[in-house]
Amino acid sequence: MLKIPDHQVAGHEAGLGNLGPLIDDSGRFYKPLQSDNRGSDEVTFYESLSTNTDIPEHIRKFFPIYYGTKIMKASTGWDHPHIVLQDLTAASLKPSVMDIKVGSRTWAPEASEAYIAKCLKKDRETTTTSLGFRLSGLKVYIGDDLGFYKPDRDYIRKTGPDDVRLLLRKFISSNPSSETETGQSPDCSSASSVYGGPNGILAQLLELKTWFEHQTIYHFFACSLLFMYDNGLALKGAGSNAEVKLIDFAHVTEGNGVIDHNFLGGLCSLIKFISDILAETNDYTGTNGQVDL
Amino acid sequence: MLKIPDHQVAGHEAGLGNLGPLIDDSGRFYKPLQSDNRGSDEVTFYESLSTNTDIPEHIRKFFPIYYGTKIMKASTGWDHPHIVLQDLTAASLKPSVMDIKVGSRTWAPEASEAYIAKCLKKDRETTTTSLGFRLSGLKVYIGDDLGFYKPDRDYIRKTGPDDVRLLLRKFISSNPSSETETGQSPDCSSASSVYGGPNGILAQLLELKTWFEHQTIYHFFACSLLFMYDNGLALKGAGSNAEVKLIDFAHVTEGNGVIDHNFLGGLCSLIKFISDILAETNDYTGTNGQVDL
Repeated sequence: MLKIPDHQVAGHEAGLGNLGPLIDDSGRFYKPLQSDNRGSDEVTFYESLSTNTDIPEHIRKFFPIYYGTKIMKASTGWDHPHIVLQDLTAASLKPSVMDIKVGSRTWAPEASEAYIAKCLKKDRETTTTSLGFRLSGLKVYIGDDLGFYKPDRDYIRKTGPDDVRLLLRKFISSNPSSETETGQSPDCSSASSVYGGPNGILAQLLELKTWFEHQTIYHFFACSLLFMYDNGLALKGAGSNAEVKLIDFAHVTEGNGVIDHNFLGGLCSLIKFISDILAETNDYTGTNGQVDL
Repeated sequence: MLKIPDHQVAGHEAGLGNLGPLIDDSGRFYKPLQSDNRGSDEVTFYESLSTNTDIPEHIRKFFPIYYGTKIMKASTGWDHPHIVLQDLTAASLKPSVMDIKVGSRTWAPEASEAYIAKCLKKDRETTTTSLGFRLSGLKVYIGDDLGFYKPDRDYIRKTGPDDVRLLLRKFISSNPSSETETGQSPDCSSASSVYGGPNGILAQLLELKTWFEHQTIYHFFACSLLFMYDNGLALKGAGSNAEVKLIDFAHVTEGNGVIDHNFLGGLCSLIKFISDILAETNDYTGTNGQVDL
């Protein structure tokens, strides 16, 4: 019943001899515990999140449901401990998915010198330092005949600010494969239904932002925001089901009374990119030029 | 008529053989152009700010007035070019002043490797990385007999998060010199008149925050927020004249369509510290425990 997820856009992929996540038919996602302390640290985070009564209910929806851990046959064929989570794309017919690693720094101050040096190098090579976030992966459903637009991961990670802006536009376009060189810009046809509106991605990001302005429980280093919507539903006129989720908690530290200014800064930068796209597409734009939800 | 400023709390100090700022009786502050490109870069910034029509009027008040540059006899005795600015403390009888360098990173991505390494080391040794800001200096007026509380700069820079919280409380206390070891906590007697209220420091920081959520003109690296209030006036019951100013623009870069997520994140962290102090002193606290201006 276990299989390799269809809609993974970033992270380790399961394969012959490779540890990677698996899913089952019941909507569960099995993530192998990572080596070093990363796997156990991520379990510690999920256990803490489950029992912490200071997390508001409206914020819990941004995290995958946690079902505990399980030792099971991994993608390598060997027994391995897994974190059992909600399969976030289980309910979608044709999910378009984007993985965005948030923060202008992916390392915690208490990390080892070697780890910091490695992260800092990657943060500076990608847009993490300059934009406060980097794209880690994306796929956009185009149609049953055309399948998905899924640019190469290495290409995505090496993009500059202008490419990031373009990919954020392609994510909600019906022609994401079109090349700007040929004069065909992404049409941003789903901007208002996916990014805009009272339940859209921008509204959800603003809800998260409000929490991050106050919460001092956790600092989320190297954590990702997942943007998802269902193009299958959208094409049927049944809404886009746009969702924002937080994933990857192997480097979460305690906040100790200080807000997560690193995540919050990156989140605000991303919010500006999304607001700009909505303003440019002339949807939800008030008379003062600011985005009006 | 030129003299060394009384109320400088950070930066280079003028002295025999040392270049440092000077003030005159007309309320002008003369800052010697720094070496390398820092001085000319700061002039470029002030010229740009003066002519940029995209800076809202209510934001201009956060910057010192700029009067151009002037070659004049410096504190070293030699002719040297100076930036001529408003002397921010000229109108105050007994100014209490705090200098806070904002951002979890003091280096621009395009800086040299040597400069980045130097800044990164200092950012990690201070609270810049962990809190998103560091205290660079402070002085608190106590009374005509007792003078000012002015802790050593090296002590201030080496503080941890708890010391920062304490110094932010001392800044608005009538007993800043008291030691917590003796059970004498800072009384936070001026919290509501300086940090709180519709014209207080928190309100001004929130005004700046709103601008930083949208502005993509400048990225302010290694820039400071100056908190000032007049204890002389406060003791006369004539208000505190609390003011927030932005200073030190030798490392400002162009925003190129991206918000200054580095400054904004640090600013939000500082806002949380100030809000917490107001909430703890039970002033301006609404029923939901959040600060109500």
